[in-house]
Amino acid sequence: MAEKVGYIGLGIMGRPMALNLLRAGYPVWVYARRTEALPPLTDAGATVCSSPADVARHAEVVFTNVSDTPDVEQIVLGDNGIIHGAKHGAVVVDNSTISPSATRSMANKLRNAGVEMLDAPVSGGEKGAIDGTLSIMAGGRTEAFERVLPLLQVLGKNVVHVGGNGAGQVTKACNQVVIAQTIAAVGEALILATASGVNPVKVREALLGGFAGSRVLEVHGQRMLERDFEPGFMARLHQKDMRIVLETARELGLALPGAAQVTQYINALVGSGDGELDSTALVTVQERLSDTEIEARK
Amino acid sequence: MAEKVGYIGLGIMGRPMALNLLRAGYPVWVYARRTEALPPLTDAGATVCSSPADVARHAEVVFTNVSDTPDVEQIVLGDNGIIHGAKHGAVVVDNSTISPSATRSMANKLRNAGVEMLDAPVSGGEKGAIDGTLSIMAGGRTEAFERVLPLLQVLGKNVVHVGGNGAGQVTKACNQVVIAQTIAAVGEALILATASGVNPVKVREALLGGFAGSRVLEVHGQRMLERDFEPGFMARLHQKDMRIVLETARELGLALPGAAQVTQYINALVGSGDGELDSTALVTVQERLSDTEIEARK
Repeated sequence: MAEKVGYIGLGIMGRPMALNLLRAGYPVWVYARRTEALPPLTDAGATVCSSPADVARHAEVVFTNVSDTPDVEQIVLGDNGIIHGAKHGAVVVDNSTISPSATRSMANKLRNAGVEMLDAPVSGGEKGAIDGTLSIMAGGRTEAFERVLPLLQVLGKNVVHVGGNGAGQVTKACNQVVIAQTIAAVGEALILATASGVNPVKVREALLGGFAGSRVLEVHGQRMLERDFEPGFMARLHQKDMRIVLETARELGLALPGAAQVTQYINALVGSGDGELDSTALVTVQERLSDTEIEARK
Repeated sequence: MAEKVGYIGLGIMGRPMALNLLRAGYPVWVYARRTEALPPLTDAGATVCSSPADVARHAEVVFTNVSDTPDVEQIVLGDNGIIHGAKHGAVVVDNSTISPSATRSMANKLRNAGVEMLDAPVSGGEKGAIDGTLSIMAGGRTEAFERVLPLLQVLGKNVVHVGGNGAGQVTKACNQVVIAQTIAAVGEALILATASGVNPVKVREALLGGFAGSRVLEVHGQRMLERDFEPGFMARLHQKDMRIVLETARELGLALPGAAQVTQYINALVGSGDGELDSTALVTVQERLSDTEIEARK
């Protein structure tokens, strides 16, 4: 019999992920604060619950996918939270991107209640969620990981078990550190090219074949040339993720000057009211700094 | 009849490049300040000349490949420089990585003397030079580029004509901006992973499949995990290239905070006496900053 699944948090990412689980044949119980998110799920056969605890009463594996650390803490440990309804032996799988240290703390509290937790943040954006092609970075005990692996493989195609509780969130933090800084590096390169009178289209092409080549140069570099800043991945979410990175660095006593610097661009971008744009739009702050603009020529 | 070729500057890069031209059947005239560089070339059939002007008296296409802007200026325009021996209609192809603005100025002076110039800096390191698999970013007039293209295709496999004089050097500068910052970003990510108790080997693996994926994460990331800092591409040369980047930014009135920041790491690395290491070793400065070290586990 197929594992009974719960999904809490039916936003841009959670909704298509829950739908993919339904389509794969799993019975799914759902909860969302905003009830307008529910119809596509109920149409596909999901059962609506009145609280996270209620979801946990029905499901053996409960996914969560919300914006930030306090939201997950509320859903897992708060009034009518998962912990108050979860069966012994249940697994909570958190697809949100939140604090690694808060994740470890929640995992400990759940374990004391006989419930395992996996942090399983994802990368790949709305398109990856819809297509079931997300990258998933999982942290938690091996038995829990292996139990939910068939479900994770419905949601993504690059599923890696990186370590114990929190390791998935740490890996996601590392992912965001690299992506943000690579976007900024590509931005500087294309600004330097344009300001030098060289076609940035040609520069991107020439660089793609060598050691400067990256997915960011390919995808985000092209977005810069086309000035296509539709998300993708919203700047305000990248800002939240960089806050987690810098908080983690502070907790650990690490200096991450590159991460700190690129976060300033994202802060300025969100501060300009452009937080709903793709985070690639941080290049517009770099442009503003030098009063210049990347210009693609044919 | 095969084009007569000159090659001036027979260092780590120039020597294998000149050898590849000889092996492809071109007659090659050479000059090097340090005569100990000459025997492998003469063994392969090269003719030794007494000055750059002397090379230019024999060859129709004269390559230059030396360390820095003043070296190229000396070889091209100085006493016994190429300009004093060059035939009308000759082409100078500069494989060095130097200042874009100085390149434009030299190209103008050569043009007034009836000689075309192409800037054709390369990327791919000693291995790429030996294997003939360099990336080559060329700037100059189309006729000159097309004339020397068969020669460039002996030296590299990714040959791109990016624009007019100086455009190749600008592209190389962009290349170095992206590579340096991507190395630093990967360094921060692997430091964050280790300090968080997560295996950086797993983090690199997990990130390679997604938007954080890059050649730098693949190659330089692996070097960091293995602590393999044999060059590759020497830090002191990356330092020189970043000096050109930041000088160009000053000339153009551009702010490139990311390029400036990563240059500080390279400065500190070279200042510690490690300038002969691969530029990936800049991660050791990042580690020093937080008194921590990336530790790969099996």
